[in-house]
Amino acid sequence: MALIVQKFGGTSVGSVERIQQVAEKIKKFRENGDDIVVVVSAMSGETNRLIDLAKQITNGKPVPRELDMMVSTGEQVTIALLAMALITRGVPAVSFTGNQVRILTDSTHTKARILQIDAQKIGAELKMGKVVVVAGFQGVDEHGNITTLGRGGSDTTGVALAAALKADECQIYTDVDGVYTTDPRVVPKARRLERITFEEMLEMASLGSKVLQIRSVEFAGKYNVPLRVLHSFQEGPGTLITLDEEESMEQPIISGIAFNRDESKLTIRGVPDTPGVAFKILGPISAANIEVDMIVQNVSHDNTTDFTFTVNNPDYENALGILQGIADEIGAREVKGNVSIAKVSIVGVGMRSHAGVASRMFEALAKEGINIQMISTSEIKVSVVVEEKYLELAVRALHTAFELDAPDHRQDA
Amino acid sequence: MALIVQKFGGTSVGSVERIQQVAEKIKKFRENGDDIVVVVSAMSGETNRLIDLAKQITNGKPVPRELDMMVSTGEQVTIALLAMALITRGVPAVSFTGNQVRILTDSTHTKARILQIDAQKIGAELKMGKVVVVAGFQGVDEHGNITTLGRGGSDTTGVALAAALKADECQIYTDVDGVYTTDPRVVPKARRLERITFEEMLEMASLGSKVLQIRSVEFAGKYNVPLRVLHSFQEGPGTLITLDEEESMEQPIISGIAFNRDESKLTIRGVPDTPGVAFKILGPISAANIEVDMIVQNVSHDNTTDFTFTVNNPDYENALGILQGIADEIGAREVKGNVSIAKVSIVGVGMRSHAGVASRMFEALAKEGINIQMISTSEIKVSVVVEEKYLELAVRALHTAFELDAPDHRQDA
Repeated sequence: MALIVQKFGGTSVGSVERIQQVAEKIKKFRENGDDIVVVVSAMSGETNRLIDLAKQITNGKPVPRELDMMVSTGEQVTIALLAMALITRGVPAVSFTGNQVRILTDSTHTKARILQIDAQKIGAELKMGKVVVVAGFQGVDEHGNITTLGRGGSDTTGVALAAALKADECQIYTDVDGVYTTDPRVVPKARRLERITFEEMLEMASLGSKVLQIRSVEFAGKYNVPLRVLHSFQEGPGTLITLDEEESMEQPIISGIAFNRDESKLTIRGVPDTPGVAFKILGPISAANIEVDMIVQNVSHDNTTDFTFTVNNPDYENALGILQGIADEIGAREVKGNVSIAKVSIVGVGMRSHAGVASRMFEALAKEGINIQMISTSEIKVSVVVEEKYLELAVRALHTAFELDAPDHRQDA
Repeated sequence: MALIVQKFGGTSVGSVERIQQVAEKIKKFRENGDDIVVVVSAMSGETNRLIDLAKQITNGKPVPRELDMMVSTGEQVTIALLAMALITRGVPAVSFTGNQVRILTDSTHTKARILQIDAQKIGAELKMGKVVVVAGFQGVDEHGNITTLGRGGSDTTGVALAAALKADECQIYTDVDGVYTTDPRVVPKARRLERITFEEMLEMASLGSKVLQIRSVEFAGKYNVPLRVLHSFQEGPGTLITLDEEESMEQPIISGIAFNRDESKLTIRGVPDTPGVAFKILGPISAANIEVDMIVQNVSHDNTTDFTFTVNNPDYENALGILQGIADEIGAREVKGNVSIAKVSIVGVGMRSHAGVASRMFEALAKEGINIQMISTSEIKVSVVVEEKYLELAVRALHTAFELDAPDHRQDA
């Protein structure tokens, strides 16, 4: 008998009919003898409806504490509905808010972090044979104020509960049937992965594969909670996200190809190469709340260097203006920007032990005549920036080069 | 500087615009230097929407604990919106759920009773100069389960908070500008009362003047909380409901005329007049959860008596069937029923010290040729049952006979 934490997102509980389907699904798990803790989000659309009301009443500037008070009701409705759907089916169940199971967070309203969970209350209800339904996305601070974890926080609630309860698995039900080698809309031959490591998943997620919230994957990795991504309404094993330990002999070098077309590139040229110059450039950018992704600085010539970084598209104009000012101040030669770029990354723990992965990547791109504008690497990832129009071509070329393509069933016959 | 508890119902906070209006109103009170605790209901329609969802998911049989979990979110949204509206206007404010201010109730879900309120938290926030906005209608039991007080329970929350905080006044804002001598739709000359006692208000309310929830008036009387009924969006002094103490010299004998056309009359004739017969008749009626209002039994003839009582119209058929069975069992002569009746009552603490009030009532009705079918009296009330078609005529005749008519302004000129 296993203890499983299951998380269902907003679209999975978006209507009375869907909640009934989720209840049926849970009932079957119970009949298999598993102990089940369910975490649910608000019905899809509900959180936005509430935020809209708050904006109307505050001329667009909701008060964070009160906003949390309000939007946390979305999940509270869903837990009650799901518990009722289960009880109506003869499955004993009970619902709890974040406060009731003491999901203690810090006091950073609208993006609080979980500090501690009291597993006792849930444990007692499980012992009585009940399915325990917990509101995702919400907690309570030490003063009793209701907090929320920010968008997608229900994944984090699921993982945190699984960690606190020492659950055998945390299952995240969503609208895809697993994690893919890359986006199937770009590469029709993309394959569902049976397994992926936490680290790989982090790289995939942060690079634009939006299956799971990054924080929940970090959390799962930190507490070693096996995480499984599954489709809410289709059967299938999904993708298991775990530690690296059970590495199989045939582990591929690369697990997947991630990409992001929503970034822009900024370059400041002819920067006097003195200590502290990187901070002088990035300090004002970060002070303006602009997130920077890739940063590349190359060796200097004639005591000057070039400094390039990427930002999200909506921040581009703002970042460009700031950078012009900095260039004048520090005496740099010029500032250049480009919004027509895309980032493509290969991700895989396998590359740690395989030499030549990067060169194989560059070779594949060169064969297609794709010029590389920037390169950045980590232990399990190589990212390149290319001209945006080459994005699909680059992803497909790399998917084939690293032998990720699904077998062609026509040839099997 | 007074401490005032103000309660706004669902229609008063039924839209963003109305919440803004309520916030403006509260802001003015604050500027006068009063400390304000506000109790609000869910936005009108919201509670029904949630109950509907619960019914859909449970084939019409919602689970009480989960239903409370769900419908309590209605008020939670309103408190947050009102607090935000206040803060946006520069009025410091903070919202609290029933749980957060420890409105401790018993565990009778969907109709819980308040046991205790912790006034400390609210007191601390008031000291910091904040308007405290509390969710009406909800509480928490000793195990931390969310409970609700039943329909109209927000009035009770307001009064209970006023009692716990020793507030100077509890103001109930509603869609009428006070308590009237009778229904102005029946008697155009009906007047707003400046004052009425708790006892009178209880008699008026239970007899069909649905301005305030009965429980809240009982509560206010028990803890001597001055209660004022006011219009949400019109200026005016409203009606103050207090103890009898400050009785003025000119206190009228009768404060108001209440009436109810939603009752039916049942008579069992020729009942053997033996001890315990009243229980034999009413026991099964009450066992069937039928509420009985007036009960009249007259002196017996030939060792048999007649027994008459009234029930709410929806219970009439059921009660009639039960009564037939009882008649057979105890050997009564016959059972008769009548749905075309109405109850008219005169209410006033003044009648305690004035003889002849009842006879003055009967005289006024006789003058109009209205036959009285039943009479029942209490210390501050005389009720009669008349044929339904005479209801309006009876109320107008009594309103004039007891000098309740508003002065005719045409004659003043």
